[in-house]
Amino acid sequence: MQPEAAYIDLLCLSRERTVLAACADLLEWDEETYMPPGGVEVRSQQRALLAGLVHERTTSPRCGELLGEIEGSSLVSDPLSPAAVNVRELRRDYERATRLPRTLVEETARTSALAQQEWAAARKASDYSRFEPWLAKMVALKRAAAEAIGYAESPYDALLDEWEAGATSAELDPLFAVLRRDLVPLAAALAAAPRKPDTSLLRRHFPVDRQRAWGKEVAAAVGFDFHRGRLDDSVHPFCMGIAPGDCRLTARYQDHYFPDGLFGVLHEAGHGLYEQGLDPEHYGTPMGQAASLGIHESQSRLWENLVGRSLPFWEHFFPAAQEAFPDLADVALDDFFFAVNQVSPSLNRVQADEVTYNLHVLVRFDLERALLAGDLPTAELPEAWNRAYTEVLGVTPANDAEGCLQDVHWSAGLFGYFPTYTLGNVCAAQLFAAAEAALPGLSDDFREGRFERLLGWLRDQVHRQGRRHRSAGLLRQATGAPPAPGPLLARLHAKYGDLYGL
Amino acid sequence: MQPEAAYIDLLCLSRERTVLAACADLLEWDEETYMPPGGVEVRSQQRALLAGLVHERTTSPRCGELLGEIEGSSLVSDPLSPAAVNVRELRRDYERATRLPRTLVEETARTSALAQQEWAAARKASDYSRFEPWLAKMVALKRAAAEAIGYAESPYDALLDEWEAGATSAELDPLFAVLRRDLVPLAAALAAAPRKPDTSLLRRHFPVDRQRAWGKEVAAAVGFDFHRGRLDDSVHPFCMGIAPGDCRLTARYQDHYFPDGLFGVLHEAGHGLYEQGLDPEHYGTPMGQAASLGIHESQSRLWENLVGRSLPFWEHFFPAAQEAFPDLADVALDDFFFAVNQVSPSLNRVQADEVTYNLHVLVRFDLERALLAGDLPTAELPEAWNRAYTEVLGVTPANDAEGCLQDVHWSAGLFGYFPTYTLGNVCAAQLFAAAEAALPGLSDDFREGRFERLLGWLRDQVHRQGRRHRSAGLLRQATGAPPAPGPLLARLHAKYGDLYGL
Repeated sequence: MQPEAAYIDLLCLSRERTVLAACADLLEWDEETYMPPGGVEVRSQQRALLAGLVHERTTSPRCGELLGEIEGSSLVSDPLSPAAVNVRELRRDYERATRLPRTLVEETARTSALAQQEWAAARKASDYSRFEPWLAKMVALKRAAAEAIGYAESPYDALLDEWEAGATSAELDPLFAVLRRDLVPLAAALAAAPRKPDTSLLRRHFPVDRQRAWGKEVAAAVGFDFHRGRLDDSVHPFCMGIAPGDCRLTARYQDHYFPDGLFGVLHEAGHGLYEQGLDPEHYGTPMGQAASLGIHESQSRLWENLVGRSLPFWEHFFPAAQEAFPDLADVALDDFFFAVNQVSPSLNRVQADEVTYNLHVLVRFDLERALLAGDLPTAELPEAWNRAYTEVLGVTPANDAEGCLQDVHWSAGLFGYFPTYTLGNVCAAQLFAAAEAALPGLSDDFREGRFERLLGWLRDQVHRQGRRHRSAGLLRQATGAPPAPGPLLARLHAKYGDLYGL
Repeated sequence: MQPEAAYIDLLCLSRERTVLAACADLLEWDEETYMPPGGVEVRSQQRALLAGLVHERTTSPRCGELLGEIEGSSLVSDPLSPAAVNVRELRRDYERATRLPRTLVEETARTSALAQQEWAAARKASDYSRFEPWLAKMVALKRAAAEAIGYAESPYDALLDEWEAGATSAELDPLFAVLRRDLVPLAAALAAAPRKPDTSLLRRHFPVDRQRAWGKEVAAAVGFDFHRGRLDDSVHPFCMGIAPGDCRLTARYQDHYFPDGLFGVLHEAGHGLYEQGLDPEHYGTPMGQAASLGIHESQSRLWENLVGRSLPFWEHFFPAAQEAFPDLADVALDDFFFAVNQVSPSLNRVQADEVTYNLHVLVRFDLERALLAGDLPTAELPEAWNRAYTEVLGVTPANDAEGCLQDVHWSAGLFGYFPTYTLGNVCAAQLFAAAEAALPGLSDDFREGRFERLLGWLRDQVHRQGRRHRSAGLLRQATGAPPAPGPLLARLHAKYGDLYGL
């Protein structure tokens, strides 16, 4: 077979797998948004069956044969050409997947569907004991997955690599160490600063239906295309890119707390802009997929924090916010801006401020490594969680709902996923600094409610690149340097030093 | 292989196919309710792929082998045992499906998804020319399907049999002839009657959000279980039984027209009660499936018309309606009851009254047979449609939106489907008469808002029977006679004679 013909067959295989996986995505979206409770049993059967069918396609011997026909041919001689990228990344996926037995894949999908329901119920009742057996089962499944995939140093790396190709805990350790060394004292200094924001103004009345409508307006204003997407409610906000023309965001709103809703929407819209910016020509192949979870998170954090928590952004949007929410009528812009940028060590990752957010992540990074290594029995998780929070953040959960039951991830089998949040923060700051350098007067854009130049830059530098580069290569290409904590730390010191008058 | 072992394997095959088909159902539900417009292209790919996978399982040679191992064995010696029923019906499905080439199945699914979008747009713009090429394509595909399946007399019967096993147009012709002969003069007599309802009271203001909330209350009151189901909005109302615990209804509401919303909800809830009443033990096998579309429709019409348009029903619900809709405050129950039972030949099937409804169906029955036979070119459909309406119903559509573009069915490839509506009306009247005979004082139940006895009877006589009987057998079992128009016509003459003072 000629490499050209083999490549066409390979793309068809890849597209079919993607279309099938998109069915599974829709089922998952539905499960989190509209499915009636009685649907859970058959839904878990559906998801297991589809996961098996997707796995079958990923691991089909035909895929291995086709890759073999193409590799080494002149078709892939330019390593950054679409063909070379697609072949490189499909080879990686194939290698990872062929090591996982189908029974394990199906069992994990089935367990994940049921465990997420139990997690939701356990969180509601703040009853960790209800979730613990499911977590134990999930840890065992993920440990089996790590062993099947293989690793150089730590089983954890086999899982981490799924979300962030090539990353290792040995590389992450020093990154988290720098962040911890710098951010714990910064948080302490801010806590001791004489100036404090008045955050009570964020706890006035913000009717949920108006938040929902206004969230849509703001998402559309920054560029999210509702012709090709939606925004719904769910317990845990997420973004699901089902197809080039179908990207679904979810959010949750609190009647008496403003930031959750809007910043959640901006966060998910950031993910959604990435999904909507992928090249539809390459749909169903690695060139039409996001580079990694860390890069995905860089886009959400960029829109949530670097755009959405900036003064120019609110110079534009605050009058509209006052119109939508009469309780803000007597609030000054500066006070509002300071309030949405409060730094305060808290119990909740999703609601955490920019300074302490990465401390939440490093707690989870340590705990999930210990769970997987078997150093931490699942029964002792609440205790270990509370101890870590007391030590790193100086706050102690009163119950497990606000402690170790707050995140959906482990119930869904997402181990090795949390560090990508911090990678996202690091990359977001670095990309934003590069965008500011490339686009003079960017703040003025925001002041005028214009976001096209920034979005265009991100489209070129990140979205349209697909999986051409791994995250380090992408950052080097876009910013001139691999991911490093410098720009993030510089930004946090400057912004919060100013705000708190340090 | 022992027949017992083969039977277990056969059930597993059947369940897997059902779980996969349920994925396709959810995709279809989503397409009609929440999917953003940009999702249509990939959605059609998804549905085609799943339809192909379902077809693959239905036609798998393994299925034919297993059936061969079981047939003739003692396992199926009692023809009404679950095993015998499952084997009989799976054999039928297998025979039908193996005659359809996979390419035709996939092409039909793909065309259906796109044609439905075009139909919706064409209907909105009342522009038949936009839909016509899609209809032509669909007619050609269905004709090819009929030829592939085979038939004794008419290609139409091959399609009709899909929805109503064993039914033929030769049997339906006399049924429709009786209905036409009886109902055209009845409609004329009612039109000439001196008493007329005041239907302007149904055109007052009924805020859509309140209709939506009240529709849910009424659906729950008659027994629809929202723990195992939902009710959403869509352009064309439908009921989708995705799984034993997941049944989805949709409705559409008009701000200034009461009947559409509530009676649509009751209609779909009737379907939903059937789906929720199927035996979950038999999920994924014919014994856990509805008997036929005609029987399905008998359940929706029974709850919509025989319960929902009865005086005892409104004796219970009218005070609550007045509470929900202040515009009804000054309306007398009798006037309201007469208004929701207006008989008036109209252009719209979904909104048609009980007397003229079957006339709408017989127009479609004639036209779709002509389309399939090639006697009616698709380009001439609007003309033929308008002519038939003028002749049979005495009304002429002013445009195609209120004419031949009103139904979704043909765009979705549902040919041979319309007659099941009339079979449903016939069976509903016959089943309801039997229930009244079996359950003395049933009207008093309704007056007190109690529907459990009726629902219990239907559960036993219809829902829990699954596909044990074909429709004729089911009716004979439940009512002592095969389907016949007598009870329907008797009921219509008695009820409307009274109301209109004939």
